[in-house]
Formats: sequence, structure tokens, C-alpha cells
Amino acid sequence: MPGSRVQLGEIDPSRTPGLRGPGEQERAAAEAIHAQNVVALQDLQYRLWAEGQRSVLVVLQGMDTAGKDGTIRHVFGPLNPQGVRVVGFKQPTPEELAHDYLWRIHQHTPEKGRIVIFNRSHYEDVLVVRVHALVPEPVWRERYEQINQFESLLASNATTILKFFLHISKAEQKQRLQERLDDPAKRWKFSAGDLDERKRWGDYHEAYDDAISRCSTDHAPWFIIPADRKWYRNWAISSIVRGALERMNPEPPTPDFDPTTVTID
Amino acid sequence: MPGSRVQLGEIDPSRTPGLRGPGEQERAAAEAIHAQNVVALQDLQYRLWAEGQRSVLVVLQGMDTAGKDGTIRHVFGPLNPQGVRVVGFKQPTPEELAHDYLWRIHQHTPEKGRIVIFNRSHYEDVLVVRVHALVPEPVWRERYEQINQFESLLASNATTILKFFLHISKAEQKQRLQERLDDPAKRWKFSAGDLDERKRWGDYHEAYDDAISRCSTDHAPWFIIPADRKWYRNWAISSIVRGALERMNPEPPTPDFDPTTVTID
Repeated sequence: MPGSRVQLGEIDPSRTPGLRGPGEQERAAAEAIHAQNVVALQDLQYRLWAEGQRSVLVVLQGMDTAGKDGTIRHVFGPLNPQGVRVVGFKQPTPEELAHDYLWRIHQHTPEKGRIVIFNRSHYEDVLVVRVHALVPEPVWRERYEQINQFESLLASNATTILKFFLHISKAEQKQRLQERLDDPAKRWKFSAGDLDERKRWGDYHEAYDDAISRCSTDHAPWFIIPADRKWYRNWAISSIVRGALERMNPEPPTPDFDPTTVTID
Repeated sequence: MPGSRVQLGEIDPSRTPGLRGPGEQERAAAEAIHAQNVVALQDLQYRLWAEGQRSVLVVLQGMDTAGKDGTIRHVFGPLNPQGVRVVGFKQPTPEELAHDYLWRIHQHTPEKGRIVIFNRSHYEDVLVVRVHALVPEPVWRERYEQINQFESLLASNATTILKFFLHISKAEQKQRLQERLDDPAKRWKFSAGDLDERKRWGDYHEAYDDAISRCSTDHAPWFIIPADRKWYRNWAISSIVRGALERMNPEPPTPDFDPTTVTID
């Protein structure tokens, strides 16, 4: 919730808030609702695109293997690619580093009618940058406020912002990394660097605690999604995105002509 | 075929080359194969993305209502949006017009691992620009060669280029425009300007004849897709794209470490 102080260490990544429990019955129900959400999202996206007046920015953050790629595939994959753009932010290039850290981000924010998904984002500039001390503390400290101002600018231009932290446990990450090692088809995704980051788990959680606490605002809320269970993650995120789009309730524009007077030769 | 002279007027947009006929039985078979193609494309795209060494550029052109949007939805919609980007080219902005016509195009060509779909493209600069005489004839005349050189540059950087002209009849367009008028949910897509373009049908076909004839090369072939039947169009395009990706046969990289020596703490 905006304004409250978050401590990830106190949130169990295997919980299933909003559902009665994590049993097989709840799972089946959640999967069924997720499938309905996807169908609803297809219609809502079409209307958002047709309306062409507002946009949606989804930010996905999480530790390695937290499920960012899976979320993109399961929640946003079924949407019309013409209206959805996925932008992955990796290590900045020298040209990007020669600008302020929001410069490269701003180039990819959604235009009216569009849904854009950020796979990692400007939040890395208060996460990996902080954990590895890539800039001095006073520099990253002032970024929380800059980020809030930046997101406020986007919101004032009719962009709905939804930010999701995919919260997995360290044990779950271990298992997912091991799967990447064991499965030859997934092995290319494994990087030795992932293990270095894993060693800084506590530092990352501290950085996330701050980022989420300081940058959850009414116009750009953070949602902490317990993500050890993939089916719960998909249900939670598709439900939140669907709810947000239903509240936007986009409508195709009414034509500025009388269709009965038009003759096609 | 590269090198041969095309005359669209001699190609029936309701034909179904490659199939025995347009009957219900062939339709059912084509739809079943299309569904298989989509599943195969999902796997091929994953491998292209994992390999990260080559890319694919798909160009879609056609008269209004020819089915560019539908092709994107039915052929490329099921792919992972993380690996696919759709770029629509509309009327150029003043900044774009202040550069050469390939400047804005080049910014959107695919990087390694990616599939990019152009919904309209640099070909508009020898189509609408020619039909409406937006530049003098000597200027657009030299563009065919420039386009071939540009596409050759992309191909030499490991981009597979596939260009599709969606070929519909004037009667089919009339019907589709009428549907947009009649269906309140589609009416926003109707523009009075579409009727002006429709009046220049012959001029556009002439411009397409030239563009397709002059710019079909071994490394960037044009495919003329009879598109009055949407199911045929989907089958034809998904089959061609699938075939091209199968010939590329992308493979995830083999890791440069021995996975049995890695321990995850």
C-alpha cells in the first residue's frame, strides 16, 4: 500500500493471498479464472487500442528466475502483439550511461493505445546500482524522488502504471537455477553471474524494501506478488491488470460521420 | 520469383495455390496445418531467441483491409511477445521527413534473436508516394535500387527477410469496408480517406507491380499471397515463415562451462 513500509523478509513467497489456500482445488479455480482473465484482457486491449487515448505501463522486477519471462508469456503472450511491446533493460550501453538513467527508459514508455511491459526497468538504478555501489550513495538516494516525479509525469499523460515485484524464496531460486543446469534446453539461460547475485540476496531485499516503500504511490502502485507458485503468480497478475483495465473502461471512438450516408463504389 | 515481371492484374486473389482447391475439405486441412505451423513457430522462435545470432524481418503490405492486422493476430499473435516486435509505419513525422526515407525504417530493423513484423514499410515510399506524386519521379525511381541495397545490408547481418503482398480483389475490399461501416464495433477503423485510395486501385497495382518486380531478390523475396480467403492467407504465410525458420534451424548456444561442476549454495 502506498505510504507503508515494506519488509520482504516478513512476506512468505509461498502464500496465496486472495485465495482460500494453496491446495489443488484453489489451484484449479485460479487457473480457470486466469484463463478467463486472458480472454477479458484481449477484449480490453482491443478497446484500449481502438480508443487510442490512454496507455498502460507494466513494470516487472524480481530476482533471477523469479518468473518475469513466464509472466510475460502467460499473462501478456495471448494479447495482440500489435498493441503490446515488451522492453528488456540490460546493462546500459556507453551511450546510455552518458545520459541520466531515465533517458533510455523514457524512450520506451507507451504511446496512447499501447500496453508496454518493462522486463526490469529504471528500478535497477536503485537496485543493482545500489547493491554494487556503482554510484555514490547520495546519487542513488535522490533517485527515489526522481522516479516518483518521472512516473507522475507519465501518469499525467494518461498512462496507468502497474509495478509487480515477483517475490520468490531463496530455496525456490535454488531449485529453479538447478533446473536450468540440469535441462540441456534451458542451460543457455544459466549464467555464472547469477550465483554472484544470489550471494547478495539480503542486500537486494534491503534495496527492494526501500524501492517499494519509497516509490509506491497512488498513481504508480507496487504489488508484491508471492511467486513461488507460478499458477498463483499468473492468477494474481492477470487479475490485477484486468481490474485496472476494467476501471479504465476504454471505448472505441464514435465516428464523426453518419455511416448510412457512405457509399462504397 | 526473383527476376521475373509481376502483373497483379493477372493473379486471381481468390486462388489457393499449393492446395487442391478452395473447398471445405481443403479449408479444414489448411486450418489444421496452420495450427501446427503456429506450434512449430513457437518452438522455432524460442530457439532463435536463445541462439541470439540471427534475426527475421517480415514485411506486410497490401491495400486497405487486405488483412495485415489479421495476419499479425493469427500468425504472429501466438508467439512470445518478448521475441516479437510489431512496427506500424504511418505518415512520416516532420522529423522523419527531414531525413532520408530509410532513416526511420533502419531504427526498427530486428536485432539478433528477434522477429520484427513491419505493418507497412519502406515500400510505401514507392507506393503511396508514387501514386500521389509526393516526390518527383526521378526520386522514387532510384529508390528501388536503394531498397535492394538496404535489404542486402540487413541480409548480410544475418537477417532473413520475408515480404508478403496480401492480394485482395476490389470486390472483396468493398465487402470488407462495408462490414466496417455496418459493425459498430469496427466502425472506428473506417476512414473516408480509404475511399480516396480505393479510387486509385489501378495506380496502386501498377506501383506494386514495379515494386515487387524490381525488389524481389534471393535474399529478400516477395511473396504474393492471394488473400480473399483469410484461412488461405493464414495457411500460406505461416507455412512460408515456418519453412524459412526451419531452414535457419537455430540452436541454443552450448554453455562454455561444465554444468556438473556448478554448485548452488
